[in-house]
Amino acid sequence: MGNNVNRQILLVEKPTGKLGPEHFRLVEAAMPEPKDGEALLRVRYISLDAANRAWMHGATYRAALENNAVMAGGSVAEVVSSNAPGFAPGDLVFSDTGWQDYAVLPGKHLAKLPHVEPMTHLLSVYGIAGLTAYFGLLDIGRPQNGETVVVSAAAGSVGSIVGQIAKIKGCRTVGIAGGAEKCRWLTAHLGFDAAIDYKQGAIFKTLREAAPKGVDVYFDNVGGDILEACLPQMNVRGRIVCCGAISQYDGAPSATGPRGVPGLIVVKRLLMQGFIVTDYFGKRDKAFADLGTWLKDGKLKVEEDVIDGLENTPAALIGLLAGENRGKRMVKV
Amino acid sequence: MGNNVNRQILLVEKPTGKLGPEHFRLVEAAMPEPKDGEALLRVRYISLDAANRAWMHGATYRAALENNAVMAGGSVAEVVSSNAPGFAPGDLVFSDTGWQDYAVLPGKHLAKLPHVEPMTHLLSVYGIAGLTAYFGLLDIGRPQNGETVVVSAAAGSVGSIVGQIAKIKGCRTVGIAGGAEKCRWLTAHLGFDAAIDYKQGAIFKTLREAAPKGVDVYFDNVGGDILEACLPQMNVRGRIVCCGAISQYDGAPSATGPRGVPGLIVVKRLLMQGFIVTDYFGKRDKAFADLGTWLKDGKLKVEEDVIDGLENTPAALIGLLAGENRGKRMVKV
Repeated sequence: MGNNVNRQILLVEKPTGKLGPEHFRLVEAAMPEPKDGEALLRVRYISLDAANRAWMHGATYRAALENNAVMAGGSVAEVVSSNAPGFAPGDLVFSDTGWQDYAVLPGKHLAKLPHVEPMTHLLSVYGIAGLTAYFGLLDIGRPQNGETVVVSAAAGSVGSIVGQIAKIKGCRTVGIAGGAEKCRWLTAHLGFDAAIDYKQGAIFKTLREAAPKGVDVYFDNVGGDILEACLPQMNVRGRIVCCGAISQYDGAPSATGPRGVPGLIVVKRLLMQGFIVTDYFGKRDKAFADLGTWLKDGKLKVEEDVIDGLENTPAALIGLLAGENRGKRMVKV
Repeated sequence: MGNNVNRQILLVEKPTGKLGPEHFRLVEAAMPEPKDGEALLRVRYISLDAANRAWMHGATYRAALENNAVMAGGSVAEVVSSNAPGFAPGDLVFSDTGWQDYAVLPGKHLAKLPHVEPMTHLLSVYGIAGLTAYFGLLDIGRPQNGETVVVSAAAGSVGSIVGQIAKIKGCRTVGIAGGAEKCRWLTAHLGFDAAIDYKQGAIFKTLREAAPKGVDVYFDNVGGDILEACLPQMNVRGRIVCCGAISQYDGAPSATGPRGVPGLIVVKRLLMQGFIVTDYFGKRDKAFADLGTWLKDGKLKVEEDVIDGLENTPAALIGLLAGENRGKRMVKV
C-alpha cells in the first residue's frame, strides 16, 4: 500500500439473513491525522469473533453498527505517532480500531499492552478470548474438582481455553464441536475427556453418555438447541455460564427459545448468568498471571488461526461463523 | 366423620391436559396406626400451591406422584398420638401428609411448628409462601433501594408478599396479575406502585409504562410469555428470580421456551437463578423474625383464602390454577 493510503473495509449493509461478502467493501481513504489527545495507530492483528456478527443485529453492550462505516472490531495496534499523553511511538495497544490499516483514536479509548512473544498471544490467550474463558468459567461457573464441565463451540477461541482450564481444575471435561476432526483434536491434543460432534445429530443421548454423572457447569457459547439439550442434564445447583449465542447470530432471529426455561431452572435450582468480559478488566492481572503460569507449565495449549491480509477479513469472519476455525482466528494486517 | 374413618382424596390418574375433578376420588380408609418412630397426625390445614400441579408431570424436587395414591400435599397437622421421640400430643407440625383427615408419618419427616394465632399464618406468612417470597426476593433478587421490582402472579400467596417486601426495601414495585379487580387490590390495598392485568393482552407496552426505568429484579412465578416480555426490559445486571412456571403447569408442555434466552442474558449480564425454599430452611429464624416485625408494624398485610372441607380440596386446587384466589389458599380439614 502507498504511504498515504489507508485501506478500510466498510460494512455496506447490515445483513438480514446470512452474512456474505456482498455486505462488505474495500475502499481506500486518506491517512488519518491525530488531533490533540489522539494517537495514530498502525493495526497489526484484527481479532475475529462471533460477537462481530451479533453487533450487526442492533445495540448490544456496544452501539449498533452503522451502514457504510468502517466495520468495527478490536485489534492489537502499534502507536505510530501520538498527541495522547502516556502513549509513545512503538507502544502496543488494544482498541476498537475497526477493520483498516490505520486508525486514529483518543488516548482514553486505548488499552496499553505489554510486548509479548508471539504478539498474537495478545489476542488469544491474553486477549478477550483467554480472559472470557478464565472469568466466565472460574467466576460464574465455579467448577469444583471432580465435577463435570461441558462447553459448546469447544474448538473455538474461548471454548478451547475453557476446556483446558476445566481440566486444570480437576473436572471431567466434555466439548461440543462440529465435525469429527475437531472432536479428535479436542480429546487427543487438548486433553478433553470426551467430545461430541453436534453435526452427527441431536446431542441429548451422546451428552448423557459423555457426562454420565450429569452436568455441573455448562459454558454456553451457542444457545438454541444445544442449550436446550443441556438443560435437563444439569445437576441440582448447576451453573450455566451464558457467554454467547452463536446459533442465533447469523440469520433471521430464532422463532423460539429453549424449552425448559424457566421450569428446569426452578426445579434444579440452576443459575444462568450472562457476562461481558470487560466487566472483569479490573481483575485481569490475576488472570494474566494464572494463564501465563499454565502456559509455561505446558498445561495450557494455545491454538491460533492467523489469516494474512486485511482484504481477507470479511471471508475470515464469514468462515468463522461457519465454524472453519480452530482456536483464535485473527487477521494479520 | 366416624372415629375410625379416615377420608382420603386419591389422585386417580395424572392429567395429560387440564386438571379436572375427574382426576380425583374421595374414599374412606381405616384409621392408620403409628408404629415405632411414627406419629398419628390430625390434618388441620392443607396448603394449596401451583406446585401441586407441577408434581403431576413427573419427578421434580420430589418423587413423581403415583396414580391411585393419596394426593400429596403439605399441611399443618396436630399430633394425636406419638411413638416418635420428641413429638407429643398437641404438637403442631408441618409435613407432607397428603390430602386426608389423618396421616401417620415417621418423626424425621415432621417439622415442629410454634403455636401462633391465627394458625393459618403457619401456611401463609410463616409458611412456604412467606419464606419463598422472603428468600427468593432477598437472597437471589437482592433488591436495592430505588430499584424496580416486577413480580408475576402478584396477587397469589408468594407474589403478594414479594411485592410488599420490595416496597419495604424501597423499590418501585410492579405486579402482574389477572383481572382488573386483583390489580386494583394490589395497588389500593397492598401498596404496589403499579399493576398490570395480563388478561388485557400482551404486556410488553404496559410494562414499559409501569417500569419506565427498566426492571432490576423480576420475580418470575409464571414463565412463558410474561417472562419473554420481561427479558428485554431487564436492566444491565438485572436478576431474574425463577420461582415457578405456572403458565406451563396445567396442560400439555409448551412447545417453545421464551425467546431472548440466552441472548439477552449475555448482553445484559443477567442472572437467572432457580431455587426451592427448602434449601433455605437453615436460615428461617431470621426470616420469621423479619416477617413478624413487618406484620406487627403494619408494613405487611397477609391475605388468606380458606376453603372449608377436605372434600373441596380438588376444586380448590383447580380454582387456584385458574387464578381464583387472592393470597394464600388453603383448606380447613
